Amino acid sequence: MIADTRTNAGLDNISVFRKLHTFSEPGERIVAIASAGNLSITQSVLSILREGLENPATGERETLMNAPTMFQAGDVKFDVSFLFGGQIKGERPRLYMIYSAGNFIECTTDTPYLQIGEHKYGKPVLDRAIRFDMDLYDALKVGLVSVDSTMRSNLSVGMPIDVLVARRDVCAAELTYRIEPGEPYFTDLRERWSAALRAAHASIPRVPYKNAR
Amino acid sequence: MIADTRTNAGLDNISVFRKLHTFSEPGERIVAIASAGNLSITQSVLSILREGLENPATGERETLMNAPTMFQAGDVKFDVSFLFGGQIKGERPRLYMIYSAGNFIECTTDTPYLQIGEHKYGKPVLDRAIRFDMDLYDALKVGLVSVDSTMRSNLSVGMPIDVLVARRDVCAAELTYRIEPGEPYFTDLRERWSAALRAAHASIPRVPYKNAR
Repeated sequence: MIADTRTNAGLDNISVFRKLHTFSEPGERIVAIASAGNLSITQSVLSILREGLENPATGERETLMNAPTMFQAGDVKFDVSFLFGGQIKGERPRLYMIYSAGNFIECTTDTPYLQIGEHKYGKPVLDRAIRFDMDLYDALKVGLVSVDSTMRSNLSVGMPIDVLVARRDVCAAELTYRIEPGEPYFTDLRERWSAALRAAHASIPRVPYKNAR
Repeated sequence: MIADTRTNAGLDNISVFRKLHTFSEPGERIVAIASAGNLSITQSVLSILREGLENPATGERETLMNAPTMFQAGDVKFDVSFLFGGQIKGERPRLYMIYSAGNFIECTTDTPYLQIGEHKYGKPVLDRAIRFDMDLYDALKVGLVSVDSTMRSNLSVGMPIDVLVARRDVCAAELTYRIEPGEPYFTDLRERWSAALRAAHASIPRVPYKNAR
């Protein structure tokens, strides 16, 4: 899961705010949430998830740390969108995108990635490269290229970038990292990608079209 | 100027419709219009431009073929967006994007390309590659890559694709071409671009990040 940290209330009121939140009892469960949209609602949702909601069926107070299944943990209805993913020991790993209307879709072999927020600029890179069975760190690399494309085209997306890697059946974070501006690997990735795109353009022949008229 | 031809009234009602229209008196003027948005309004605008509007200052009926300047020809107010460009002999070539509200911006050395309609998927490619002083046919090539990226990500954009090339001070179309599905050059361009992106991903090293914790 990858998230930027830029929030804004107008172009002259830009702040850094964490949008990727991880809840984990290592070896038992890891649950991560990334949010897009209204910040006050996002924070309310996170507070409610931390404090818990009463399950009407059992009368018990359920939080992200004791919800029995990922499905029950994902049933949230507010006017923002979320990526919600993780694994509870004994279940398979699951990743959901929760729309502002409260409905949601789940990541599958046919839909191997999900995006929220400003998703269009970075989508072509993902469509071409992300496969369900690819290496986890190749997927991370492609995800960072996608975020870079989005940041270049839209000022409302910006560094630093939070990264979470969680491997199947570990039920703990394998990597938690914040990429700060100027960080050497990400700077190199951006430059290599730009150079590769320029080279790709150069390697394509010009159009041979002649007027049919 | 490049335009797709897909129009839809719902996903089960898709048609091919020309969105790129050229008006030219070769050697004297060339004016081209590409439209995005409501088709009935687009057609009304084109009809009015063909039939002409009375200029309140002179009382004369002005059409695209006798408007004295590109600026006057571009002052259209309707609920669609347009690319409007060309050259009238004695003037410099100009290209405008006309927003649905009727306001417009002009292409400049700092803003060397303009997009209307479904613009986000194809923008990163343009941002990285389009320069004011690049070769006209390199720009066309990059433009086709951008349209390809858009078509892959959004079903509402589709083949065939209309292309118009007009060179400065010629005041006539240098190339007018419709790229049909399966056309060999465009098919090759799509394949080369996909292969180049895959190679670009492969050439970037994986992330070296370790948990700071």
